Amino acid sequence: MDNNFFLKGNICHTPQLGKIEIYENSYLLCLDGKSGGIFHEIPQQFANLPIKDYQDCLIIPGLSDLHIHAPQFAFRGIGSDCELLDWLYKYAYPEESKYSDPEYAQKAYSMFADALGKSATTRAVIFATAHVEASLKLMDLMEKTGIVSYVGKVSMDRDAPENLVEADAKTAADALLSFISGTSQRSYKNTYPIVTPRFIPSCTEKLLTRLSEIQKKYSLPIQSHLSENRGEVELVKSLMPSSAFYGDAYNRFGLFGGDAPTVMAHCVHSSDEEIQLMKDNGVWVAHCPDCNMNVASGIAPIRKYLNKGLRVGLGTDVAGGHTESMFRAVVAAVQVSKIYWNLVDPKCEPLSLVDGIYLATKGGGSFFGKVGSFEDGYEFDAVVLDDSSSPHPQPLTVYERLQRSFYLGLDRTGIKAKYVQGRTVC
Amino acid sequence: MDNNFFLKGNICHTPQLGKIEIYENSYLLCLDGKSGGIFHEIPQQFANLPIKDYQDCLIIPGLSDLHIHAPQFAFRGIGSDCELLDWLYKYAYPEESKYSDPEYAQKAYSMFADALGKSATTRAVIFATAHVEASLKLMDLMEKTGIVSYVGKVSMDRDAPENLVEADAKTAADALLSFISGTSQRSYKNTYPIVTPRFIPSCTEKLLTRLSEIQKKYSLPIQSHLSENRGEVELVKSLMPSSAFYGDAYNRFGLFGGDAPTVMAHCVHSSDEEIQLMKDNGVWVAHCPDCNMNVASGIAPIRKYLNKGLRVGLGTDVAGGHTESMFRAVVAAVQVSKIYWNLVDPKCEPLSLVDGIYLATKGGGSFFGKVGSFEDGYEFDAVVLDDSSSPHPQPLTVYERLQRSFYLGLDRTGIKAKYVQGRTVC
Repeated sequence: MDNNFFLKGNICHTPQLGKIEIYENSYLLCLDGKSGGIFHEIPQQFANLPIKDYQDCLIIPGLSDLHIHAPQFAFRGIGSDCELLDWLYKYAYPEESKYSDPEYAQKAYSMFADALGKSATTRAVIFATAHVEASLKLMDLMEKTGIVSYVGKVSMDRDAPENLVEADAKTAADALLSFISGTSQRSYKNTYPIVTPRFIPSCTEKLLTRLSEIQKKYSLPIQSHLSENRGEVELVKSLMPSSAFYGDAYNRFGLFGGDAPTVMAHCVHSSDEEIQLMKDNGVWVAHCPDCNMNVASGIAPIRKYLNKGLRVGLGTDVAGGHTESMFRAVVAAVQVSKIYWNLVDPKCEPLSLVDGIYLATKGGGSFFGKVGSFEDGYEFDAVVLDDSSSPHPQPLTVYERLQRSFYLGLDRTGIKAKYVQGRTVC
Repeated sequence: MDNNFFLKGNICHTPQLGKIEIYENSYLLCLDGKSGGIFHEIPQQFANLPIKDYQDCLIIPGLSDLHIHAPQFAFRGIGSDCELLDWLYKYAYPEESKYSDPEYAQKAYSMFADALGKSATTRAVIFATAHVEASLKLMDLMEKTGIVSYVGKVSMDRDAPENLVEADAKTAADALLSFISGTSQRSYKNTYPIVTPRFIPSCTEKLLTRLSEIQKKYSLPIQSHLSENRGEVELVKSLMPSSAFYGDAYNRFGLFGGDAPTVMAHCVHSSDEEIQLMKDNGVWVAHCPDCNMNVASGIAPIRKYLNKGLRVGLGTDVAGGHTESMFRAVVAAVQVSKIYWNLVDPKCEPLSLVDGIYLATKGGGSFFGKVGSFEDGYEFDAVVLDDSSSPHPQPLTVYERLQRSFYLGLDRTGIKAKYVQGRTVC
């Protein structure tokens, strides 16, 4: 068997919501790209396997970013002084228009892929732009990072600037087909296409119909935005008056879970009916707390979703969110959950940091299969973290070190190694 | 004249709330430790002054951290899963108890001073612990950083663990006098004592009376906590039933502004009467948004305070806040203001990033005098920021670069130089 080894270090994972397991100075077994268990001492039958000794480092499951816009990475941290719909026209659309130029796309996406490669992210669900060539370039670059990702060429045939919007449903559908064909010619190992209607305001009913046909034909997953901002929810209501609620506008076209694995970003203003449909259809929620603060959308009631049994992961949502750091996404999720509990609903218990880590690992990882945990049989995605650069005068437990690694954002400087499916990727 | 020179670079400051002024490739004059103006070309009469050319760097006023607990730096980022009063007993008090050991204090405070020295902070208002010797050690270390700071030996004679609480009002008052005497013997240039009742629950009326006498005798400023958390506000009500509101409990003892420059951290749950008294007495509000999220206190209505003409600055509030980064405090202040607008009061307009920068510079700086701006006659505190490490594919304006520097937290890696009162400090 190939690709069998041990990592040695302080191993932490969250096999259940709210529960962290910590194994100090232990051995994490990778067997053919999958987790083979955690051991205090190496079992006899594996005595000959190589050991990568990371000494006192922390070893945690890789993090899954369920929502990030690659072309917006260029202006991360810029323009957060307006609400969603204004922000799209003022910042997002003008920048995305530039990706009609393959050279610009190559330059900009190289920076994005480089940053993601260096981050704690091992899986990502990514929006590109409407441009086929640029989106394939992004996939070429993502493939090289070793990260497993879904990349969506964005589909949008209305209500956007002329140099970005696709001419009509047919043009948009043909472009998507050409993108899918491009991906299959390239025989990527880690990089997959995903059907990506931008959001309801950008898509005619004709286009949604065609996207659903294409999704079915190629058995592709789906990503989009849902109930992010009050103005947007109102806009959807006026554009699709026959839909009972925002999610229903996707569902009527077969673009809302069920047979098609679907992840919807935000879900800040979801009605009870919408929440029930997400549950019934197994739709993943990509919770993007920094974005929801930055463009003043509100706070998604994540504890409520978890209590109802919805599937939830986290997204950085660059550039509504200002950073690609999933450690920051975890902290932000915990922070806003406390505000929600405090100001909106005292029955919605705050998320603990362990809950946040669960969402960023096993919660979001489930969109990719058995991912985000070191339980037996899970794909071997791991991040090795050296937290020694940040000083402290007192002894710390491994769990205390883990907490501060997240809060202090040590993913920026402390990632010593990263493994995806058992492969070393940085 | 000594200490006269120009800095050259892209100069940005916020002379008024909501207004940023940007001077590209310009010269910032330091005349005897004070700002002497910003010039596109060097005036003839200053032609002989040395120029420190920071080329394409950003140059901004130094930031004032109005609230930070030095002994809590050790556990920053740890233990944010409980509310204030529990958190004090579980994390803050046990750590603070250790500072009875001068060796431990030396070790821990060295790390704190080192971090603050490397930060964008040029002024700070600091809580130490109840221990005299350790607090003087902290002052020795702060003095070496070149940062101008007020350091408070904490006064607390009730309701805390035995190894931390002072035996009675007399013991506490004597300790404060000994601390003050220690500071005057040391003839610091940048480091000053500040009267620091921990908060009302920790102080008997006798102690508050004595603190007020000492404050008057030595004309010292005052710092404390105010209306941070609902449980705390209730506790104060039960402990001081004759006070009309929390702030009144300080005011009755002359410890709430007026002749004594006073900064109160948090003010999350201040009543209209309390707000009015803060205004009448000229009390500074130290807004600590990350702490208010982390220990689930809520959101202070900063726009309302600004509209009413209160004095407001920002605090990192380590370790209720998880980082000493004032850039993060600015971003957090903007973020929570959007949530407040969204979920609590649509009349409370969100803070812009420029508002946040104003609060962190001129807003908080006013506690130290003419500080936090490059207007003529302001003390020359400046931070030179090299933002080139964070790549972007497109040209950016200076203002866009400033925005991303704050959002991306480039104070962690990008501080090229720091000046306080015209002195180079890093």
